[in-house]
Amino acid sequence: MIAEAVQVVSPGPVPEGLLAAFDAYETALLTNDVATLDALFAPGPATVRGDGTTLLVGHAAIAGFRSGRAVIPTRQVAELHVRPVGDDAALVMASTVEPATGATGLQTQLWQRLAGDWKVTAAHVTLPRTQPATPSRAAAAALDRSVWRVVGTPLVAPTGSGPLDGVTVAVKDLFAVAGERLGAGNPAWLAEQEPQASTAPAVAALLAAGAEVTGLARTDEFAYSLAGQNAHYGTAPNPAVPGGIGGGSTSGPASAVALGQVLVGLGTDTAGSIRVPASYQGLVGIRTTHGAVPLDGVLPLAPSFDTVGWLAREVGPALRVAEVLLPGVSATPAAVAPPARTVVLPTVETHAIPAVAAACADRRAALVGEGLLPTAEIVDLAPEILEGWFAAFRTLQAFEAWAAHGDWITAHPGALGADVGGRFAAAADVTAAQADAARATIAEARAWLREVLAGAVLVVPSSAGGAPARDSSAAVVEAERAGTLRMTCLAGLAGAPAVSVPLLHTADGRPAGLCLVGAPGTDLDLLRLAATLEGAA
Amino acid sequence: MIAEAVQVVSPGPVPEGLLAAFDAYETALLTNDVATLDALFAPGPATVRGDGTTLLVGHAAIAGFRSGRAVIPTRQVAELHVRPVGDDAALVMASTVEPATGATGLQTQLWQRLAGDWKVTAAHVTLPRTQPATPSRAAAAALDRSVWRVVGTPLVAPTGSGPLDGVTVAVKDLFAVAGERLGAGNPAWLAEQEPQASTAPAVAALLAAGAEVTGLARTDEFAYSLAGQNAHYGTAPNPAVPGGIGGGSTSGPASAVALGQVLVGLGTDTAGSIRVPASYQGLVGIRTTHGAVPLDGVLPLAPSFDTVGWLAREVGPALRVAEVLLPGVSATPAAVAPPARTVVLPTVETHAIPAVAAACADRRAALVGEGLLPTAEIVDLAPEILEGWFAAFRTLQAFEAWAAHGDWITAHPGALGADVGGRFAAAADVTAAQADAARATIAEARAWLREVLAGAVLVVPSSAGGAPARDSSAAVVEAERAGTLRMTCLAGLAGAPAVSVPLLHTADGRPAGLCLVGAPGTDLDLLRLAATLEGAA
Repeated sequence: MIAEAVQVVSPGPVPEGLLAAFDAYETALLTNDVATLDALFAPGPATVRGDGTTLLVGHAAIAGFRSGRAVIPTRQVAELHVRPVGDDAALVMASTVEPATGATGLQTQLWQRLAGDWKVTAAHVTLPRTQPATPSRAAAAALDRSVWRVVGTPLVAPTGSGPLDGVTVAVKDLFAVAGERLGAGNPAWLAEQEPQASTAPAVAALLAAGAEVTGLARTDEFAYSLAGQNAHYGTAPNPAVPGGIGGGSTSGPASAVALGQVLVGLGTDTAGSIRVPASYQGLVGIRTTHGAVPLDGVLPLAPSFDTVGWLAREVGPALRVAEVLLPGVSATPAAVAPPARTVVLPTVETHAIPAVAAACADRRAALVGEGLLPTAEIVDLAPEILEGWFAAFRTLQAFEAWAAHGDWITAHPGALGADVGGRFAAAADVTAAQADAARATIAEARAWLREVLAGAVLVVPSSAGGAPARDSSAAVVEAERAGTLRMTCLAGLAGAPAVSVPLLHTADGRPAGLCLVGAPGTDLDLLRLAATLEGAA
Repeated sequence: MIAEAVQVVSPGPVPEGLLAAFDAYETALLTNDVATLDALFAPGPATVRGDGTTLLVGHAAIAGFRSGRAVIPTRQVAELHVRPVGDDAALVMASTVEPATGATGLQTQLWQRLAGDWKVTAAHVTLPRTQPATPSRAAAAALDRSVWRVVGTPLVAPTGSGPLDGVTVAVKDLFAVAGERLGAGNPAWLAEQEPQASTAPAVAALLAAGAEVTGLARTDEFAYSLAGQNAHYGTAPNPAVPGGIGGGSTSGPASAVALGQVLVGLGTDTAGSIRVPASYQGLVGIRTTHGAVPLDGVLPLAPSFDTVGWLAREVGPALRVAEVLLPGVSATPAAVAPPARTVVLPTVETHAIPAVAAACADRRAALVGEGLLPTAEIVDLAPEILEGWFAAFRTLQAFEAWAAHGDWITAHPGALGADVGGRFAAAADVTAAQADAARATIAEARAWLREVLAGAVLVVPSSAGGAPARDSSAAVVEAERAGTLRMTCLAGLAGAPAVSVPLLHTADGRPAGLCLVGAPGTDLDLLRLAATLEGAA
């Protein structure tokens, strides 16, 4: 009997039966005996239960709350104070302790004898929680290692002042930064690295324009994944989809931007490594025209497709960065005509999940209707042609990835996580002849796409769906990846810029991006168009 | 009238005068009208007030609590539920909202009419607190810049394997770490630094023994403060005293340890820079024998007193580090006899606040009584002698501090925060003759103290009081500092080791350290003694 185990403090005689009722309640609470708990609360609309966050009024509301609650941790009554009010009412205050944690709580109940039975007519509960000092004793990382490898305040200060004054940047751990090692998302690789002698020009240009580097952020291993699930450092959070993956391979910069820890995330995009995390996390992301931003000091994956890109929460900061990193383009904004056509490729969109495909079609039609996008033109593309292009893209990407990293991977068996390791293992089997055949196909694809993109903007989903759950099966992740790559490979094949704008949602509310693909060199035009669309969203 | 501004929900007629009494109470609460609040609570020992953390019993205890509380933030009653019990009693439950934050709370009061007046006989308070923040779009720093300058995962990997395998270390930003700049707590200084060519031997020894450096943590500017309030980077949190300063100058490592972000904080102690943050944050801290751990690669403050030291949550990790950094001592543990006497210096303890002085005396007597400390011996020390020693300590510290940093400070006017800047400005006026006179006094003090410490352990408070509030006046902080320095200077004068163990508390529950000072070379003995005391606490 709980009430007998502790001293009962009361200024007067405790009414008969009260302690037995209290005991019954406490026992039912610890065993989650909902029926007894419901019976011991007074029926009717006047019964009230509050905890500081929620005030429940009426027996039905309280019972409803209780039915959805988990079993509470075991606790003990430490002190029991009773304030009788006549023979048929008393206030009971019980302080409680959780033995496991030492956390203390308090519950105050007004008990009233109704039709002969003791019932709670009002309750105020402060659940046991740890003392102010106790949370401090809980281990907490100084840094989220799934997002960052190294962070400073800042890590690298600006070297100049200019349009990016005050801009904080998370740099994907694929860029050289003087004095820092280049981690590439793999601890075995990192362990062999020496500090870099100089800083990649793309990073140096940001620093010279006034930006500071907050830190080096995670990448999927050697950037060869779209998932953002690093086998060594964990899955970076996706604040827009709790429990969802964040996308990669620019995983750390994307999460850092989404978490509000930096204004800009700098990364790379070979097959979607900027656009996919932007899509999954509701961010703006740009993949630049192939060759427009120098890749010196950036670890290659597949040079035929590798580009620099960046992410931000809104178009504004992305545009400011573009004006610094793409000065040649920005010098002549007026010289580039706005696109005259909105290109629609239905064949590509069949690879999106239905909700995203429908959202893309609806949003695009609405934007055309509002005059924010030019007239739509549906362009036919035979499914087998798209498959051939995609196969060629994947073949050449694999061939070049193995050329870049095969020697190191061969010398370090077991150093890679299963997913990326498996992809590289397959890449090892691609022959030079296959790569040559792929290059021929890609040349055709590039010519066709550049013709279609001339004076036009292609509008497709940025990813096949929304962010898959972290605990999705490999098959689900692979299906999402396969669908997504059919969309993202187009910009890679064309060497074209692409901007993902968070304008779509899945049926259950996960964000997805609307991707604007333009002719090579139209990077700034795409961002300015994105700014217009963003404003209209 | 508060109760008229919201709907009053009650299953029956609200007793006359109750709402007026409630209104009066609420108004008094918001204006911190303590006299009215006290009058509205029922007199006598049976009145009770709880909040889940503390259950106060009796009017006197409640009034005492109230007198020490700050004004609560403005709040509004959102809902008011009344449960009458007859004509002379009612339960009132009021949910409250803080307009500034949107935080909600709940207060439940049992009102009873006693001798014609409504009085609260029991109260349960859940203070408004903010809801779990939406993580998605809230800006959050990747790093707490008041604690850290740079952090990695790790920042520096172990160079060997040994007794410190798995130990994470926050290194005070006063130690050279190869490839990293040395920040010294000042941004103007930092901006001029080049990466260090080599790592301080103390840090290198930890790395060789298997430890990893998590990051470089904040120091007060040039370590010339005990407060932990860096004018440029903010006040590091003290998880043991919410709203309290954390102490310094080893401020960042101490907070990182207290927050559970690292196992060990490495720092320096010239005049208490390890012992004071240990005391304020409830940590174990050791200042080593002067010269026992090399100071190469550590920015000096006052070389006559500078020592390496470290902090941990418990004695165990501190002892493991000591066995690595003090190998000569650890090789012959059995050769050092346990102390035969517990030295008490009442003159020194007059500089502690009464609660800490009393706690120290009580705890020491108890430990002697339990046989955990040897027989106590009270040693006289004339107050004017102590003042002379302290003045000499302060004089030589200032002279050496200016010798170390005066040129740089002179060349950088305005670069220092007001507190440390003022201290250096005063240091600039110390003459060589004054320093020589101080050295003579210090030699006398050292001889006397070493004689007293031979075969003995001096037991004093680690700080004059508990952590002052962050918003304390400069006078309060200075008074605490002045009292503390009278205690901490003794180990500095003697070149002796000192270990702070979190065994004391102020009257309001803030931790304070019990400091064990031993003869030079007894560092490990002190830690082993501390482990015994810790176990008995």
